[in-house]
Amino acid sequence: MSIDLRSDTVTQPTETMRRAMAHAEVGDDVYGDDPTINRLEELASEMLGKEAALFVPSGTFGNQVAIMSHTQRGDEILIGEDCHILMHEVGGPAVLSGVQTRWFPTYLGHADIDKLEKMIRDKEDIHFPKTGLICMENAHSSGAVVSMENMKSVYQMAVSKNIPVHLDGARIFNAAVALRVDAKEIAAYADSINVCLSKGLGAPVGSILVGSNCFINKARKNRKLMGGGLRQAGILAAAGIIALTKMTERLYEDHKNAKYLADRLEEIKSCYVFRNRLDINMVFFTLPESTINESALIEGLLRENVKINGIEDGEYRFVTNYGISTEDIDKVVQAMKTLISAHQ
Amino acid sequence: MSIDLRSDTVTQPTETMRRAMAHAEVGDDVYGDDPTINRLEELASEMLGKEAALFVPSGTFGNQVAIMSHTQRGDEILIGEDCHILMHEVGGPAVLSGVQTRWFPTYLGHADIDKLEKMIRDKEDIHFPKTGLICMENAHSSGAVVSMENMKSVYQMAVSKNIPVHLDGARIFNAAVALRVDAKEIAAYADSINVCLSKGLGAPVGSILVGSNCFINKARKNRKLMGGGLRQAGILAAAGIIALTKMTERLYEDHKNAKYLADRLEEIKSCYVFRNRLDINMVFFTLPESTINESALIEGLLRENVKINGIEDGEYRFVTNYGISTEDIDKVVQAMKTLISAHQ
Amino acid sequence: MSIDLRSDTVTQPTETMRRAMAHAEVGDDVYGDDPTINRLEELASEMLGKEAALFVPSGTFGNQVAIMSHTQRGDEILIGEDCHILMHEVGGPAVLSGVQTRWFPTYLGHADIDKLEKMIRDKEDIHFPKTGLICMENAHSSGAVVSMENMKSVYQMAVSKNIPVHLDGARIFNAAVALRVDAKEIAAYADSINVCLSKGLGAPVGSILVGSNCFINKARKNRKLMGGGLRQAGILAAAGIIALTKMTERLYEDHKNAKYLADRLEEIKSCYVFRNRLDINMVFFTLPESTINESALIEGLLRENVKINGIEDGEYRFVTNYGISTEDIDKVVQAMKTLISAHQ
Amino acid sequence: MSIDLRSDTVTQPTETMRRAMAHAEVGDDVYGDDPTINRLEELASEMLGKEAALFVPSGTFGNQVAIMSHTQRGDEILIGEDCHILMHEVGGPAVLSGVQTRWFPTYLGHADIDKLEKMIRDKEDIHFPKTGLICMENAHSSGAVVSMENMKSVYQMAVSKNIPVHLDGARIFNAAVALRVDAKEIAAYADSINVCLSKGLGAPVGSILVGSNCFINKARKNRKLMGGGLRQAGILAAAGIIALTKMTERLYEDHKNAKYLADRLEEIKSCYVFRNRLDINMVFFTLPESTINESALIEGLLRENVKINGIEDGEYRFVTNYGISTEDIDKVVQAMKTLISAHQ
Repeated sequence: MSIDLRSDTVTQPTETMRRAMAHAEVGDDVYGDDPTINRLEELASEMLGKEAALFVPSGTFGNQVAIMSHTQRGDEILIGEDCHILMHEVGGPAVLSGVQTRWFPTYLGHADIDKLEKMIRDKEDIHFPKTGLICMENAHSSGAVVSMENMKSVYQMAVSKNIPVHLDGARIFNAAVALRVDAKEIAAYADSINVCLSKGLGAPVGSILVGSNCFINKARKNRKLMGGGLRQAGILAAAGIIALTKMTERLYEDHKNAKYLADRLEEIKSCYVFRNRLDINMVFFTLPESTINESALIEGLLRENVKINGIEDGEYRFVTNYGISTEDIDKVVQAMKTLISAHQ
Repeated sequence: MSIDLRSDTVTQPTETMRRAMAHAEVGDDVYGDDPTINRLEELASEMLGKEAALFVPSGTFGNQVAIMSHTQRGDEILIGEDCHILMHEVGGPAVLSGVQTRWFPTYLGHADIDKLEKMIRDKEDIHFPKTGLICMENAHSSGAVVSMENMKSVYQMAVSKNIPVHLDGARIFNAAVALRVDAKEIAAYADSINVCLSKGLGAPVGSILVGSNCFINKARKNRKLMGGGLRQAGILAAAGIIALTKMTERLYEDHKNAKYLADRLEEIKSCYVFRNRLDINMVFFTLPESTINESALIEGLLRENVKINGIEDGEYRFVTNYGISTEDIDKVVQAMKTLISAHQ
Repeated sequence: MSIDLRSDTVTQPTETMRRAMAHAEVGDDVYGDDPTINRLEELASEMLGKEAALFVPSGTFGNQVAIMSHTQRGDEILIGEDCHILMHEVGGPAVLSGVQTRWFPTYLGHADIDKLEKMIRDKEDIHFPKTGLICMENAHSSGAVVSMENMKSVYQMAVSKNIPVHLDGARIFNAAVALRVDAKEIAAYADSINVCLSKGLGAPVGSILVGSNCFINKARKNRKLMGGGLRQAGILAAAGIIALTKMTERLYEDHKNAKYLADRLEEIKSCYVFRNRLDINMVFFTLPESTINESALIEGLLRENVKINGIEDGEYRFVTNYGISTEDIDKVVQAMKTLISAHQ
Repeated sequence: MSIDLRSDTVTQPTETMRRAMAHAEVGDDVYGDDPTINRLEELASEMLGKEAALFVPSGTFGNQVAIMSHTQRGDEILIGEDCHILMHEVGGPAVLSGVQTRWFPTYLGHADIDKLEKMIRDKEDIHFPKTGLICMENAHSSGAVVSMENMKSVYQMAVSKNIPVHLDGARIFNAAVALRVDAKEIAAYADSINVCLSKGLGAPVGSILVGSNCFINKARKNRKLMGGGLRQAGILAAAGIIALTKMTERLYEDHKNAKYLADRLEEIKSCYVFRNRLDINMVFFTLPESTINESALIEGLLRENVKINGIEDGEYRFVTNYGISTEDIDKVVQAMKTLISAHQ
C-alpha cells in the first residue's frame, strides 16, 4: 500500500462498509423503493437539521443540482472567490442552470460582508440579473474553516434580502470538528447543504443534499434531468450510513495528523507551512528556499511509494486521511529531507 | 418477495455481484486510479467494438453526456418519435446541451429513412440550425427490436452526410439476443452507444458509454461537468463486469418468459396483446372488453403481492426480469383472471 | 426596379413612412422616453385587444422573447410541425430559453387537437418536462390560414390545462383579411401574439409583441437581455404606426394578386399550383412535367429582372407584395412561358 | 427642450441623419440586399481595421453575439470587474452562450495583467472550463480611458495563450479622442470590437461589430438566432454612416464640456469630483458634505428642466452629449448651487 497524500478522496471504504454494501437491502430508488437510501436520507436530514435529503452521485452533482433548484435561468449567483463551485466544477452553473456567476472577495473563505451585500442587485433595474443565490463553502478548500460568526452574518443578511444560501459542505463534518460544534449548527446558516459521504468519511461514492421539502422535491426532479436517478443505490447508501454514523467522529484524528505533519514539515529548513489555514486535514506549504523542483519531488516520493499532487497556485497540498498514520507521516518527512538535501 | 413486473430496473443484484462488490479493488476514478473501473471500461469497449468506454451513473446520464459531447450549443438533434431521450429524460438536451430536438417518424423504432433524410438541414441556410446528431434506440422501448437493415440504412445515410449517430442501447443486449447477432454488430451502426448495466443485466447502478477515443475524452470532461465523476466507483464496476460477462446470455430467458406471459394473457378473453412488438422482455396489452379499471387491477394484484405500473399511453406494460419465473407468471395470470371475472 | 417575388419581406417603405420617420418625435426608449414607441405600443395593444405591447427588432426576436417570458428553463414547448419557430429560427428555443421543442402534427397549420392534447405531459411524472407553452402560427407559412374553429379549440384546450398559447402572428393581418375577421378576434385565442410590421405591412424594421401587462413586463426585461433594448426607436415606430393604420387594409390586394398569379400560372401546362393553401399572398407550385431546372428558371427570370427564390421542400413559392402589380404578374408569367418552352 | 445629463444615449439624431434616413436606399438585409447596410459595414470595417463588420440592433446585442461567436458552451470568459458586459447586460453570457463569467481586477478599466494571466485555466485539468475569451472595455464606463500600453499587454498575453480578446468599444471613438490615436490603433489590440453608433455619435439605433471574416460569418448566423436579422435596416445604417463619418470628431467637444462641467461643479463647496477618471464625456462626483438627498436633487433639477440619474454605487454621473452646451452647464450648476444652499 502506498501512502497517498493527494486528497482524502482516495480513502478506501472500510471493511464494515464493504460488509454493509454486500448485505444492503435495496430497491429501485427511482420508484422510491430503496429502503437503505430512504434510511440514509432520513438520517442525513436529521443530522443536518433539515426537512429532507437527497442522495446524489457526487459533490459536484450536489452543488449543481442545488443551484438548478434554487434559481431560474438568468439569475446571478454570488460565490466566494476561490470556492470549489466556481473554480473546480468545470463552469457548470452557466451550462446546466443558465446562471451568471460573480465572485465576492473572501479571506480564508470568510465573506467580506459589506462587499457581498453591495453586490446584491437592485430588482427594479432592467439592466440587472436577479441575485438568485449566495454560495458559501465550509470547511473551505484553502484548508481553513469559516467562523460561525461569518456564517451567521452572511445568512442573516441573505434572509433580510430574501436570497437563499447554499453551503458547499463537502467537508462540513471537518468544519464541525474544527469549530467544536454540531454540524447542524453550521447547517442552520444555510438553506441547502451538500455533504460528501466520500472524502474523509470514507464512503466510496456519493453525497447528500439537504434542505426544505419543497427544495428537495425540485432537486429530485432536477437530479433525474441531470442523469442522477440511480436504481439499487442502497448499495452505496449502506456505506453512506456508516460514513455518517461511524466516521464523522474520527475526523479529529486526520486534523491532529495534519498538525503533526505541519510540525514535522517545519523541521525542513526550506519549508514554509501556511499555519493560518491549518484547520482541518490539509497542510499547504511551499519550499521557497529549496532547489528541488516539482517533478523531482513528486517522482522522488513516488519511488518511496508516496503519492502527492503537483503544485497548484504556487503551493503544495498534503491531505491526511483515513489511510495515513503518524508513522506514514514520519516516513514521508524523512523521504522529503533526503530528497531535498540531495538537491541542495 | 413480491412479483415485480413494473420494469427490469427493479432487478436485485445477484449474490455473485454482491460478493464481487464487497471485494472489489478500488481507487479514486477521478484520478484514473480505479482498477475495477478500468477493467470494466476495457471490457465494454471490447464487447461493443469501440476504442474506448466510460462508466456513467445512469442511462439518462449516458445519453445526455453523449449528446453534450457530440454537439455544439445551437445544433439540432433528430430523435425517433417515441424514444426515451425525447420522452423520458425530462427535456435534458435543451437544458444541458442547448440543442433543439426534432423527432422523426418511426414504426416500432424503425426510422422512416426518407423522412429522416429530408429533415437534415441545409448548412448554407442562415435560418437553420446545424443537424448535429441522429439518435436511435435499440431495443426500442415499445418492446420491439430495430432490424439490422434499418440500423445500417440510418448509419450509412448519416455517414454520407457527416452526421454522427448515437444509439441508446440501454437494452442493446436484449436486442442482440432477439436479433441473434453479437452486440458488436449492432454497435457498428452507431458512433456512440449507451449500455445499461442495470435493467435485465442486474447490476445495481450504472451504464457504460462507448465510442472513439476522442469522443470518450470529451465525454470524460463533460461527465465531470455534469457531476458524474465518482470516486471508488470500482464497487459498482465489479457488479458491472459480472453484468457484462455472466448476465447477457440469460436475457433469452426473460424473452422466453415474456412470450409465455403473452400466451397466458391471451387466455383472458378481454385481453389484447401487442404481438407485433413482443421482441424482448416486455409485454404490452390492453383490456378493451373488460370493465376492470386501472386502479382496481393495480390494487387487486398488489394484494396478491404482484406489482405493476399504471396504464401509459393507453396500454399496460408487464416486464419480465431476473426475478420472474414461469410459476410467477402463472400466479399473475391466475390472479388477473380472478380479478377480471369479479369485475365482469 | 426589379419584380421581387421572393418574399413580402422585400417590401420597400412607402413615401409616407419615410416622411414619418424623418419627422418622428423620439427619445431614449430604454428609459421609456420615446413618445412614438409609446404610441405604437398603445395602438398595437388596442388593435390586438391585449393589455400591453412591446416593440422588438424582428419577428424571430418577438417569438423568442415570448418563449423566454412564458417558460422556465427545462419546460417543453409544443409547436406545429412546420412552423417558423421550429423550422426557421436557428434552433433558438433551446439556446436562448433552455426549453425542449416537440412538434405536433398539423394540416395546413391546423392542429390535430387530439394528438396535441395527448402530447401534454403529466405533471406528476418525474421523467417528464413540464408542458410550458403551445405555439401556433396564423397565417401559416404554408400559405394557408388557420380557421377560427381550430384556433378556438386549441386555446380552450390549453386554458383547461393551464398552458399558455403563443401565436406567431407575423402575418396575422393577412389571416384577418382572409378570414374576414378583426385581428383582435384571432388574437383572442392566444395569450401572446407576435405581429410583424414589416412584410406585407411595409415597415422597414420591427415587430410588436402583445400580451398581458405581467407578460410584457417580463418580456421587456428579457428583451434587454437579448440585446433588443433600442434607443431612439421611435424612428422605426413611426413607420410601424403607418403599417398598422394604413397598410392592413390593402393586404386584400396582395391576396387578390396571388389568386390572379395562380390563375395565370395554371395556364402553363406543366405547372401545378397548390390551390388548397392559396389563402394569403403566397402561391406555391411545382413544375412536375417541365424539364426546366431550378437554376435555369432563377437565372432566366433574373435576366428579365424578376427575382425568385429556389425550390424549398420541393416547391416554388412566389409572394405577392406592395411592389407587385397585375402588370408585373403578366410579365412574369410571360417570361416563364418563354423559358419553359425553350427548355421543352 | 430639457437639458438631459442622464446619458449620451439620449442624443437626438441630427437633421442630416433624419434626411439621410428618409432617402436611404434600402433592401432586405437578411438577403444581403441592403446597399446602405453594406456600405456601413464596409466603412466600419475599414475605420476599425478589421476584415468585416456586422450591423446589430444594440451595444448589448453586439457584445453578446460576439461572446456567442467566440466561445463554445462551457467555456469561461474573463471580464474586467465593473465592465458593462458583466454588470449591465442582465446576465446574458450564461443564458445566451452557456459560458461562465469570472471577473478580473481592474483599476479604472486597466487590467491587472499578472492577476489576469493567473486566471487563465490549465487546459489539461478536467476540473476546469476552458478560458474562451477575455473582455476589455474602452472607453471604460467609469469615465476613464484604458491606456494603449494596457490594451497592448492584455492582447499580447492573450495571443500568446491563444485566447481571443473582445473589446466593448461602445465608446471607442471617445477613447480614441482621449488617447489622441486613431480608433484603428485601439482596435488592433482586440479580435473583435463592438462600436455603438448611438450614444455620443448620435445615430438613433444600432451598433457595429467588427472582426475577421470567419468571425463575422459566425456572428451573422448567431445574429439571426438572437433575432437581430433586420429587413430594410438601411434606414438605420444611413444614420450610422453619418455617425461614423461626421460625428466622431466632435466628441472632443463633449469631453471639453465634461471638463468644464467638472470645473464648475468644483465651485460647489460640498462637491467632490473624481478627476482621475475625467477622460471622456462623463463627470462622476459625490456631495459628501451636502445635506441634500438624492430625490431632492433629482426633483429640484427636474423643475428646472434638467434631467439626471439617481446615485449608482454611491456616485452621481453627469454625461455631456451633443445636446449640451456650455450655457446649459452654467444653468445646471447655478440650479444646483441654489438647491444645495436651500438644503444647508
